[in-house]
Amino acid sequence: MEINIALLPGDGIGPEVIAQAVKVVKAVGQKFGHTISFQEGLVGACAIDATGDPYPDATHEICAASDAVLFGAIGDPKYDNDPKAKVRPEQGLLRMRQKLGLFANVRPTFTFPSLVHKSPLKLDRVDGVDLVFFRELTGGVYFGEPRGRNEQGTKAFDTNVYSKEEIVRLARMGFEAAQKRRKLLTCVDKANVMATSRLWRETVQELAPEYPDVKVEYEFVDAVAMRLIQWPKAYDVLITENLFGDILTDEASVISGSMGLMPSASLGSKVKLFEPIHGSYPQAAGKDIANPLGTVLSASMMFDYAFGLSEEAKLISDVVNLSLAEGIVTEDIAEGGKAYKTSEVGDWLAAKIL
Amino acid sequence: MEINIALLPGDGIGPEVIAQAVKVVKAVGQKFGHTISFQEGLVGACAIDATGDPYPDATHEICAASDAVLFGAIGDPKYDNDPKAKVRPEQGLLRMRQKLGLFANVRPTFTFPSLVHKSPLKLDRVDGVDLVFFRELTGGVYFGEPRGRNEQGTKAFDTNVYSKEEIVRLARMGFEAAQKRRKLLTCVDKANVMATSRLWRETVQELAPEYPDVKVEYEFVDAVAMRLIQWPKAYDVLITENLFGDILTDEASVISGSMGLMPSASLGSKVKLFEPIHGSYPQAAGKDIANPLGTVLSASMMFDYAFGLSEEAKLISDVVNLSLAEGIVTEDIAEGGKAYKTSEVGDWLAAKIL
Ligand SMILES: CC(C)[C@H](C(=O)O)[C@@H](O)C(=O)O
Ligand SMILES: CC(C)[C@H](C(=O)O)[C@@H](O)C(=O)O
Repeated sequence: MEINIALLPGDGIGPEVIAQAVKVVKAVGQKFGHTISFQEGLVGACAIDATGDPYPDATHEICAASDAVLFGAIGDPKYDNDPKAKVRPEQGLLRMRQKLGLFANVRPTFTFPSLVHKSPLKLDRVDGVDLVFFRELTGGVYFGEPRGRNEQGTKAFDTNVYSKEEIVRLARMGFEAAQKRRKLLTCVDKANVMATSRLWRETVQELAPEYPDVKVEYEFVDAVAMRLIQWPKAYDVLITENLFGDILTDEASVISGSMGLMPSASLGSKVKLFEPIHGSYPQAAGKDIANPLGTVLSASMMFDYAFGLSEEAKLISDVVNLSLAEGIVTEDIAEGGKAYKTSEVGDWLAAKIL
Repeated sequence: MEINIALLPGDGIGPEVIAQAVKVVKAVGQKFGHTISFQEGLVGACAIDATGDPYPDATHEICAASDAVLFGAIGDPKYDNDPKAKVRPEQGLLRMRQKLGLFANVRPTFTFPSLVHKSPLKLDRVDGVDLVFFRELTGGVYFGEPRGRNEQGTKAFDTNVYSKEEIVRLARMGFEAAQKRRKLLTCVDKANVMATSRLWRETVQELAPEYPDVKVEYEFVDAVAMRLIQWPKAYDVLITENLFGDILTDEASVISGSMGLMPSASLGSKVKLFEPIHGSYPQAAGKDIANPLGTVLSASMMFDYAFGLSEEAKLISDVVNLSLAEGIVTEDIAEGGKAYKTSEVGDWLAAKIL
């Protein structure tokens, strides 16, 4: 197969973890006889520094022409505490999601037996957790208009807005995922307060009869924020709007104790995007210590979701499990054993594949 | 002292837990020679059933004329899954907050040594947690206009809006609380996406120099949702907008393992309101099994915050601690020991005070 991957390393540890995923992807291509090419683009703070734009047109063209995007991380502390900054790295991310039509962010949370003891939660609460969020990614308060300030600058406003179609297409993905899993769908909203949430709930209620094998539950976002910690095993598939998804997927990501390993996919159009959920982690940048496994597992998801190559995907996750079993891991999960460098883990994984 | 308390038992277990707090408050009045009178009002689903209005004018008059409001809980499942219901119990709660000017919701999270093992988190993460949220309660997306649907009903929208003054008055409460505590204030926002959040951050940055002894940190709401579970002891005072506060205070409430015991206060105007954070818990209603200690501790906060009677407040929290030590507790925390009824716990506490 001919595969053309757009690489967007981004900021902080992004370039280092992407480099390891590239080694793994190349090894898979060699082993299975795929011709894989890579096109690299700038995104985030590094793109602002180089071009003034966090998502330059040139980068968009690379993404739009690719078969899939492999993304590192963006964000730089120099932009965080300047509320008046005109251009911010995050704008690039948001524009990218919108221009590529990536309306669904898929975030699984699951456990690795060898890491579950690192969870902040007690073992009985997390052992065997296996849930997945479908977060709406191109609507809601992230993009709603009007937004801004009054003339004097003393008042600020944002608009949360959802159309029925936006909800339907996201919800259908959730229903279909639930059908292939434990057949439980939780719709997370704030229907007791928000008009948008009532449209979410109403729309999901209308769709439910089309998926009679799926049990649908409706929960308020505040209740889910609690129950996710109290008993995360109660959940299977969760669907929710952009902002609630932002908060809850991050909350969920720490539950399993394997945050550095959690992959994600953003879907919706021809071009799909894959990225680890950890951020740019600027303190670790350039030190060759970042954990590359979240990015490598994102590459595994890419073979599955974007190319339909499940054997390749499985081989990648198998070698990741092997690296965990044999302790070929970075310092964040080394636990007294030898800590390997980011680049060493990547080399080891690629060698195991070949 | 002459004290006039408005009682709003509300729905579900509300009436049962309020009845116990009343016993305790009466005992304190008798012991310290205060003349305490109670006026009861309807609120929530029971108010809709009786009057068609979840916060009838008569109830508002009782509250406005009182020295403090003691509130139980509201909410009934029959309203939850009907997105088209015209009148909902929550509307009463929101109207009450707004009409009484209760712009700050104060939610402490702390541990009881005898209960900390009930936390879903590991002991080292929660032992000694002591944080308090100041959640803005009368602004944001809860009240912003416009909100609703387009004509065809296929699109819904909500408006989040904050003025500088709304932020200033809430933030000052947080700064002042931090000065009396560990001197750390965390401003929680989504300034990388939302215009309202940027006004929050900017406003807090402007106020900070007035409180040079307080260290101020700015964190995104998604990061706080993670760190609250990873290391809750890192926080002291957190300030945030209405919706983020709704989600995060509920998340925080499960950390200590003592959710049934957590009190809260809503401040802002002459009349202050006190309520347990647990909801109406309809499944337990009428069974005399609900834990009354959250409401009793809310009454303790009332003596302190509303009447400036700290000795009375301390006596109440002392007898609560005694009931925990001696195992005079409801089934949710009885742990194999004898489980007492809601009413028995109330009787025991009142008798201990006298
Ligand atoms: C960086 C930020 C704009 C972004 C978001 O809020 O969507 C991030 O938190 C994420 O979840 O990918
Ligand atoms: C019932 C609901 C409207 C309310 C809120 O969202 O404020 C509740 O969750 C709370 O936190 O008191």
